Amino acid sequence: MPVAGSPDNLCVGQEVTDIVDMQTTLQEAQRNRFDFVVIPLSRTPAPDLTDAAAHTPSHRLPPYEFIPMAQSDLALESKMWTSAVCGTVSSWIRPDCPHPAYRDRSIVALQRELQWASHLSEYATICPCPELPCANYARIMMPLLLSPLSTQLWVRIPLSVPPVTEGGGDATEGWQLWHQLRMMCGHHSSLCVALEFTDIYGDDDACLDKWLAEPVRAVIIPTDIFVTNAKGFPVLSRRHKAFLMRLFRHRVQVIMRYDRGEEPGSRQMSDEGSMGVSQGQPQGMTMDAYLNYVARLFQSLEPLSQAQMFEQPYLDYLQAPLQPLQDNLESQTYETFEKDPIKYVQYEQALVQCLQDRMAEGKTNPTIMVVGAGRGPLVQASLNALQSAKIEEWTVYAVEKNPNAVITLQSRVRGDPCADWRRVRVVSGDMRQWDTTERADILVSELLGSFGDNELSPECLDGAQRFLKRDGVSIPTRYFSAVAPVSTTKLYNDVKSYKDQEHLETAFVVKLHAFFRISGEEYQPVFEFEHPNWEIPDTHDNKHNRRKTEVSFTARADALLHGFAGYFHCDLYKDVFISILPTHMSEGMFSWFPIFFPLMEPITIKQGDTIRGHFWRLDDAHKVWYEWCVSSPQPSPLHNPGGRSYFIGK
Amino acid sequence: MPVAGSPDNLCVGQEVTDIVDMQTTLQEAQRNRFDFVVIPLSRTPAPDLTDAAAHTPSHRLPPYEFIPMAQSDLALESKMWTSAVCGTVSSWIRPDCPHPAYRDRSIVALQRELQWASHLSEYATICPCPELPCANYARIMMPLLLSPLSTQLWVRIPLSVPPVTEGGGDATEGWQLWHQLRMMCGHHSSLCVALEFTDIYGDDDACLDKWLAEPVRAVIIPTDIFVTNAKGFPVLSRRHKAFLMRLFRHRVQVIMRYDRGEEPGSRQMSDEGSMGVSQGQPQGMTMDAYLNYVARLFQSLEPLSQAQMFEQPYLDYLQAPLQPLQDNLESQTYETFEKDPIKYVQYEQALVQCLQDRMAEGKTNPTIMVVGAGRGPLVQASLNALQSAKIEEWTVYAVEKNPNAVITLQSRVRGDPCADWRRVRVVSGDMRQWDTTERADILVSELLGSFGDNELSPECLDGAQRFLKRDGVSIPTRYFSAVAPVSTTKLYNDVKSYKDQEHLETAFVVKLHAFFRISGEEYQPVFEFEHPNWEIPDTHDNKHNRRKTEVSFTARADALLHGFAGYFHCDLYKDVFISILPTHMSEGMFSWFPIFFPLMEPITIKQGDTIRGHFWRLDDAHKVWYEWCVSSPQPSPLHNPGGRSYFIGK
Repeated sequence: MPVAGSPDNLCVGQEVTDIVDMQTTLQEAQRNRFDFVVIPLSRTPAPDLTDAAAHTPSHRLPPYEFIPMAQSDLALESKMWTSAVCGTVSSWIRPDCPHPAYRDRSIVALQRELQWASHLSEYATICPCPELPCANYARIMMPLLLSPLSTQLWVRIPLSVPPVTEGGGDATEGWQLWHQLRMMCGHHSSLCVALEFTDIYGDDDACLDKWLAEPVRAVIIPTDIFVTNAKGFPVLSRRHKAFLMRLFRHRVQVIMRYDRGEEPGSRQMSDEGSMGVSQGQPQGMTMDAYLNYVARLFQSLEPLSQAQMFEQPYLDYLQAPLQPLQDNLESQTYETFEKDPIKYVQYEQALVQCLQDRMAEGKTNPTIMVVGAGRGPLVQASLNALQSAKIEEWTVYAVEKNPNAVITLQSRVRGDPCADWRRVRVVSGDMRQWDTTERADILVSELLGSFGDNELSPECLDGAQRFLKRDGVSIPTRYFSAVAPVSTTKLYNDVKSYKDQEHLETAFVVKLHAFFRISGEEYQPVFEFEHPNWEIPDTHDNKHNRRKTEVSFTARADALLHGFAGYFHCDLYKDVFISILPTHMSEGMFSWFPIFFPLMEPITIKQGDTIRGHFWRLDDAHKVWYEWCVSSPQPSPLHNPGGRSYFIGK
Repeated sequence: MPVAGSPDNLCVGQEVTDIVDMQTTLQEAQRNRFDFVVIPLSRTPAPDLTDAAAHTPSHRLPPYEFIPMAQSDLALESKMWTSAVCGTVSSWIRPDCPHPAYRDRSIVALQRELQWASHLSEYATICPCPELPCANYARIMMPLLLSPLSTQLWVRIPLSVPPVTEGGGDATEGWQLWHQLRMMCGHHSSLCVALEFTDIYGDDDACLDKWLAEPVRAVIIPTDIFVTNAKGFPVLSRRHKAFLMRLFRHRVQVIMRYDRGEEPGSRQMSDEGSMGVSQGQPQGMTMDAYLNYVARLFQSLEPLSQAQMFEQPYLDYLQAPLQPLQDNLESQTYETFEKDPIKYVQYEQALVQCLQDRMAEGKTNPTIMVVGAGRGPLVQASLNALQSAKIEEWTVYAVEKNPNAVITLQSRVRGDPCADWRRVRVVSGDMRQWDTTERADILVSELLGSFGDNELSPECLDGAQRFLKRDGVSIPTRYFSAVAPVSTTKLYNDVKSYKDQEHLETAFVVKLHAFFRISGEEYQPVFEFEHPNWEIPDTHDNKHNRRKTEVSFTARADALLHGFAGYFHCDLYKDVFISILPTHMSEGMFSWFPIFFPLMEPITIKQGDTIRGHFWRLDDAHKVWYEWCVSSPQPSPLHNPGGRSYFIGK
């Protein structure tokens, strides 16, 4: 959508209230370095309600006549309408106004203006701010949302709505308006938000954080929200500024509005950290000063780290979890994961410590078995560790079930630059079936998924510990999964867009970005496993790997619960660990993104509510699966009963 | 996929039969200006069947061992496998070989090699040429096609297969092998063709034309197919060359194979037009000479015309037909269609002729009514025609039902640079309901769709002729639709990919490109309409616009019938027409692409078969729809009964 070149990828538009000629308006905006303009759709005036009779249902207003703001669509080429113009619905329109005549006129005008916006194919149309309850508004929007509309619909939502009666009552959180409208519109994915900067509602940043989980497409910044710094330049308050910086990471467009009519001195900087601030609103400032400030803010964003760059294409992108046990991984998948700069360093360190501990106990000539060796990265870590520990007498096995990866292992045995590979013994087969009289001192594996046990590490290691010495060590020794309740409109819409039950009952691997953690707590643990597990009963069932856990969180804000984010933490050996817990994240490790357990129907949450979730890990002869549900603040359906939609093949 | 820069967008690969080291092989190919290499997947030898016992079912071959051609996947980075390497399945593999032991070994090896190719994520894998019947082959391919495979599957198909017994029997058309395999594989859209240049089957170009309707992804050109020209350089025969030039327009990749083992003198140039050709196959030629020839051919393609450039993104892209009567068009849609360089010129010419004819009859002061005026292009054509005909006393009405377009018309009346607009009378409303005592001399409309009457021109003009003088003229005066039976794998797969009945019963607007006209005849007419139609009964039904037609074609080649291409022809006035018939196409006119009527199940056609199609145009109070079916050579289901899937709202 950029028309004029704007700093990097930020698009900034100018909201204008009147136009004489579209060409002139656009050229002027471009000259002022704006990328697009936001213009009113119509100049039809508000109905005159001075007449007392206007308030009665039977009152008849003169017939409605639509007067477009731009003379006609010919005022611009269609590609300009499409790329450089947003329209705003007339501000007098109130489809849920209590006055019947005014309300009916509003409904007619709203439909007509949106029809006109669609005719022009404007880049986006900014719809009026809803009033509660917004039932009429939702009824007008639904048929538009269900039809193929050629303009985006952004609803204008202020951060905070002042009380209706001056001096009395409380302000309303703008989010409540949005929440009611989107619930009434059935979470329609085409309904988005143009968030208007006003006073911030409340002191808790949760009220701002939650917007990152919503489809905010644009931020409207009126100049009267600015304050003046010591040098006399317009700046945003500390909280507004910090919030805008975070929104920049969510690809919002910025719309600036110059409020000429405002009274000077109506606002002053009150934050600490900005000393010597002059009283009141900047006076005589041109739009340029405000635009410069926003552009500089954008340019001051820290550049993305290498890991962040890697993650960019995966942000909020749903992936089906790998099934490495059931399917064979491809060469490129191995190659990608082998590049992890942290994971194998941690494994090597765990191995060195473990080898040294065993030497100290007088245990020499170690046998290491790497089970699920893939193309050999853990074999390499083992060889490195043996060298670090200065052990010369050793045996290393590499057990792998994927015949294609076995070809790689065999070729490394023949020709890897590290000469120790010549002595590695490659075993082609499933660790659960391999028959050997050899016994291992250390069993090394990397069978974890984003939710820890979800790639069946417990079942595989139970099978493999047959050939572990009674005093042998498993690396990893322990791991657990954890969850946190989240709001994430984007992911819910993506899951729902499949239009089937299956996807609404599937846990997806996803780099969560546009989400809001509803609870104060970062997470609660769910399922834990330790290896080796000598308590396994002799029967061949797997009951000891079944689990049932309840988690309980307190909501830190009103929000919409869409599901749970899932993580894992894994102790490799003693205090050497790998983790994707928000609090313990192994910095730079990219092998695992979090997992997302969706809910079929989102649940409205009030601040202080208890969110109680239930999680099961279950199995039968052929598969393992999770089931989940919510019991508080209101019950959800049980998800994935019997693994009908989502399971991991054994 | 290009590795080295190749002429423009053509990618050329080299097929090699043996490799020592992948890096060296790739570097050598790059040095020789190839973009990719085609290598064998395995060096496992064919089973030894010299033993007579090998032909018995009970014979046991030594165990199969897979030996990859490249040492392991580590030989290249995965992005090189993915972009610069195609694999070929071992040529000894014959899953439908009559010898049981050999066949079973082939099946095991085919599965293992394809699994390996998928592990490497090679750009594409070239599967062996099928033998008829190819049931085993199809059984092996299906699970692969149904799984998420990370390599494209191209089946190697020669243009012609020589008779099995030397000297005896006829050659087989390679297309028959492909046809059987793809039928058995349920038309799976991931199954594609690598077409190998051999002798051309038959003298009729229909045998080559039909390949343009198939998913040909690559052309394999062995050097032994080349002949030597007068200057001693290798060239292709006239027919091979012309065919390759046509394939270039379908984004094929080229694979060159250097046949060193061939005997010189085994082939000679026989076409006329290439005089002084030396005997036999070029000797001592380097690969460079062949590559240069192919690159020069590609560069000699005529550049695309403006109209062709415009059409590029729409080639074989299905579009739902517009419903301008039911929905209001958007500004950009009007803008696009108004740019047609032919249509309005033709209308203006028809208007001039008509005005002159009426003046000659002494009819002055003409009233022109443009019904469905949109944003005014036909109004402008009328004003131009009046000026050309030097008529100063006139009345022009512009009737339009879309309120957004009416705003444009009104703004042109106020301010259009052509001053005659000041006198145009704009009427906001539906021509079928407009109530006026005015009577028109000429009723001008453009209500045609790709299939002529499919935007309800007949119904609209029946309604509008109320205000046409009894001796008045409708421009257009006559139009008819036409169809031709076509094979088009791409469109069938696209329609089928919606996985519902609705799309298989919908006529789509589409710029047909990868298709084959099965019949010798270019088309047969279907439904015809003339205006004005004073024979309309007084009742308010629409029975006179219902139609039923039968069309009958003779197949010029064996083929797979996927549906019918539809066109229209329209006489505006006397001999002035607009047309998208293949034989009468108004050159440069881009307002209409053809329409495509799919069949739910494609029908196999033999050369000489009669293809009989039935088409209905039906209506009820609210809609008009088509139904269609085929009765010969075998009956199809009746498509779209009662307009259940596809209709045009009145």
